[in-house]
Amino acid sequence: MIIRKAQKKDSKELIRLIEELADFEKLSPPDMPAQKRLLAAAFSKQPKINILVAEEKGKLIAYAIYMFLFSSFLAKPTLYLEDIYVSNNFRRSGTGKKIFDKLISIAKTKKCGRLELMVLNWNKNAIRFYEKYSARQLKEWKFYRMEF
Amino acid sequence: MIIRKAQKKDSKELIRLIEELADFEKLSPPDMPAQKRLLAAAFSKQPKINILVAEEKGKLIAYAIYMFLFSSFLAKPTLYLEDIYVSNNFRRSGTGKKIFDKLISIAKTKKCGRLELMVLNWNKNAIRFYEKYSARQLKEWKFYRMEF
Repeated sequence: MIIRKAQKKDSKELIRLIEELADFEKLSPPDMPAQKRLLAAAFSKQPKINILVAEEKGKLIAYAIYMFLFSSFLAKPTLYLEDIYVSNNFRRSGTGKKIFDKLISIAKTKKCGRLELMVLNWNKNAIRFYEKYSARQLKEWKFYRMEF
Repeated sequence: MIIRKAQKKDSKELIRLIEELADFEKLSPPDMPAQKRLLAAAFSKQPKINILVAEEKGKLIAYAIYMFLFSSFLAKPTLYLEDIYVSNNFRRSGTGKKIFDKLISIAKTKKCGRLELMVLNWNKNAIRFYEKYSARQLKEWKFYRMEF
């Protein structure tokens, strides 16, 4: 199994995994126009998102989408992990750990002060996973969203 | 009072406002190297952050730092509001509203699907302000951070 940057040729399999994640998170998956926008954001000359994938025997079994924020007080970039997903049949195989370790190494290379993510409150396995990495829940902050 | 993009010449006043915000939020303000990194992130050729300021009689009285995330499922950019601060003597003057309205207008111009922010749970005035804009707290998500 190898962890590598996603390429345009991975598009179809990536969308399959994203749909699996949406199903797992009980959220709406991206519709066709959204899929097109997402792939354009990933594979344009100035990509808006970065994607890592785990490939085994020519098949994608996991992916992570991440980007960079910038903390004003720390004045360092923050690696923001938008999604991380390991396909159902490949869990507990260390794939998630390998991707997450790679993300940490990327964050350090980019001189990030932090790695941040959101996790759904019922996703106990994910929470246990992040806490093993000494990620800390920031209970003093409330997360607000406006939608347009 | 005018709302405009921050320029390099605003550096000193910006740092003063950022220190005021840190004091208000009971957080550590950026130290000297962090101040330099922040100003470089704001005023380089490829800025990592965007800054709006409110100027009155040649003096800065408020600022907002924002950047863009990208939602994978929505496949649209998200305007992420890192900081918004109005200097103590100028609150309740509509300055915060003017900056926030400008941020919403920028988000719409950039075809964002969302505007997101974090607010400290004791900052009731800020929470009331955001809720007037029909911003919604996402209670189902937990916010995790790793520090390096």
